[in-house]
Amino acid sequence: MRVSYGVFENNSFNRMKIALLSPIAWRTPPARYGPWEQVASNITEGLVEKGLEVTLFATGNSQTKAELQYVSETAYAEDADLDAKIWECLHISHLMEQASRFDIIHNHFDFLPLTYSRLIDTPIVTTIHGFSSPDILPVYKKYNDNAYYVSISNSDRSPELDYIATVYNGINPDDFTFNLRSDNYLLFFGRIHPEKGTDEAVRIARKAGRRLIISGLIQDEIYFREKVKPFVDGGTVIYVGNSGPAERDKLLGGAYALLHPISFEEPFGLSVAEAMMCGTPVIAFNKGSMPELIDNAKSGFLVDTVDEAAEAVNRVDSLNRSYCREWSLSNFSREKMINGYLDVYKKVLDKGVRLNEFPAKYPGV
Amino acid sequence: MRVSYGVFENNSFNRMKIALLSPIAWRTPPARYGPWEQVASNITEGLVEKGLEVTLFATGNSQTKAELQYVSETAYAEDADLDAKIWECLHISHLMEQASRFDIIHNHFDFLPLTYSRLIDTPIVTTIHGFSSPDILPVYKKYNDNAYYVSISNSDRSPELDYIATVYNGINPDDFTFNLRSDNYLLFFGRIHPEKGTDEAVRIARKAGRRLIISGLIQDEIYFREKVKPFVDGGTVIYVGNSGPAERDKLLGGAYALLHPISFEEPFGLSVAEAMMCGTPVIAFNKGSMPELIDNAKSGFLVDTVDEAAEAVNRVDSLNRSYCREWSLSNFSREKMINGYLDVYKKVLDKGVRLNEFPAKYPGV
Repeated sequence: MRVSYGVFENNSFNRMKIALLSPIAWRTPPARYGPWEQVASNITEGLVEKGLEVTLFATGNSQTKAELQYVSETAYAEDADLDAKIWECLHISHLMEQASRFDIIHNHFDFLPLTYSRLIDTPIVTTIHGFSSPDILPVYKKYNDNAYYVSISNSDRSPELDYIATVYNGINPDDFTFNLRSDNYLLFFGRIHPEKGTDEAVRIARKAGRRLIISGLIQDEIYFREKVKPFVDGGTVIYVGNSGPAERDKLLGGAYALLHPISFEEPFGLSVAEAMMCGTPVIAFNKGSMPELIDNAKSGFLVDTVDEAAEAVNRVDSLNRSYCREWSLSNFSREKMINGYLDVYKKVLDKGVRLNEFPAKYPGV
Repeated sequence: MRVSYGVFENNSFNRMKIALLSPIAWRTPPARYGPWEQVASNITEGLVEKGLEVTLFATGNSQTKAELQYVSETAYAEDADLDAKIWECLHISHLMEQASRFDIIHNHFDFLPLTYSRLIDTPIVTTIHGFSSPDILPVYKKYNDNAYYVSISNSDRSPELDYIATVYNGINPDDFTFNLRSDNYLLFFGRIHPEKGTDEAVRIARKAGRRLIISGLIQDEIYFREKVKPFVDGGTVIYVGNSGPAERDKLLGGAYALLHPISFEEPFGLSVAEAMMCGTPVIAFNKGSMPELIDNAKSGFLVDTVDEAAEAVNRVDSLNRSYCREWSLSNFSREKMINGYLDVYKKVLDKGVRLNEFPAKYPGV
């Protein structure tokens, strides 16, 4: 069945109605930590600027130029009174019950919304922000045939799923000031957790003989206490806590380089794109999406060990901070991401595919 | 809109198609502990015997004469590899996606299925097996206007919800052998948990100078270790573990009395009905559903303290074990429960109420 939505006729998007489903662990956009909410916000505001009719489903205290719909005023990671399991399903069903109002539902809420998808007619585009656990794959596999999955990097694709596109996360360049002349510190920016390599960042900085500033949410208390805190001396290693947008801009832009010595297959590194947007090169362990995010030897260095990373710090002067900005602008700007998602929406709607029909996967796409 | 289903025409149920949604924490029926799965099983098998076309949604290793549908072979409380959150939503959606095959969905799965209810046309009858937490009330309240809630005792009704009926849990009399002459031990039968009063049962038995046998799943390890285990001596206080059906029948039937000194508003006490079905009187703290379950001074005693309970043990000889059986047969038999639910189904279908129409609550019911 071909359904004419007309939303793309005459290159006009203004009749397209999009529902953005954000998580409710944090406010959208988050005050500090909250990457999924941050990306959902970036997409929402970008689509509003393009003139689309956007409804954001998020917490009530969220900030948006879109229509805001919510069931819970606050976020469950910020409000101990809220039981996540209860408010998640109320949040999701609140949208699903209004599904017919929308041409597209864009899901940033992981797997649970998929289990409602065959009960409604509106197609759901699901951005998979990484597989929190291999255990969730059965849900994605079950809905593979009538879902539109978007990967946030090619590296994060599961061979068991079909994807309609890879759309890199995009950030608003206005939020990240280009800084041609950096300060001399190295920066670790992200969750304090073994998989993010805070410990390794400390060792790299010590080996390279440079100051390290650490900013991020302490997600693993024991790790912080045992592996990081002993080195925090307020001079060569400084921990500044979890940073909001203004401090983030200042820290990223001032850094000589961002250290990103991850030990997991990270699906996307938002802080990597953000650092480069400020002109700051990134020295990262060569895992997950890093080869897609970093233009090796141009916007940073891909390395495999602490020693290699420390050595790479000595080569940072060979990089061009203006190029880092340009690279991030061309690949990870909000504009680029929005255009990527508009292409996805267009593919879904042009085919006139309705979810309940179990189409052959993306015919002709 | 009045929809004629015809299923009750000529007093014939044989065209009615019922889907029973059981939890998947345990097998249905459970091998040992698992009261919700037990009740779902009792209803399923009872409806099958009445000639209805029943489909049971439960774990794959469940046992039933109904059609069995499942997504997970095993139960998550019995299989550490299963993530409850993931398999619950797959289990529920598996049913919801086939909703149109059924005249009625009978939900024993707590609140999550309600959030799918407005997306399907088939009415959902929800048996509320107790409120696991006051936090779940918002979900029940949201769906109050298009749900059919059944309470398992009048005492368990929330003043904030509407109910279509109270249907007491029913058990199969064949599973509980009537025993006119008991042994001389007192019995505690249930979860080892402060709210079930295992500790109090020990104190009552000691005060009454009788042996106590304890059977049940240890749900609170620390409580068991500190408050119960010190008294377990294999003689005056015996812990026999968690009992399956055959041992349960023997333990309940042989008991001089069942002690049920609960400290919470228990919505229904399955073991209370089961004990009486064997002819065994029950001495219970007067809370929750106990005044509905026990015919005071005839099938047991309602008391308020350990001292009163110990004193009541001395009056057990004044009770008639045959009357206990009769009382349980008339109020808590599977037959009685099945007829109660058939009445509920009839009310729902006769009204021709479809969920999506948001009817005035139970007009004329």
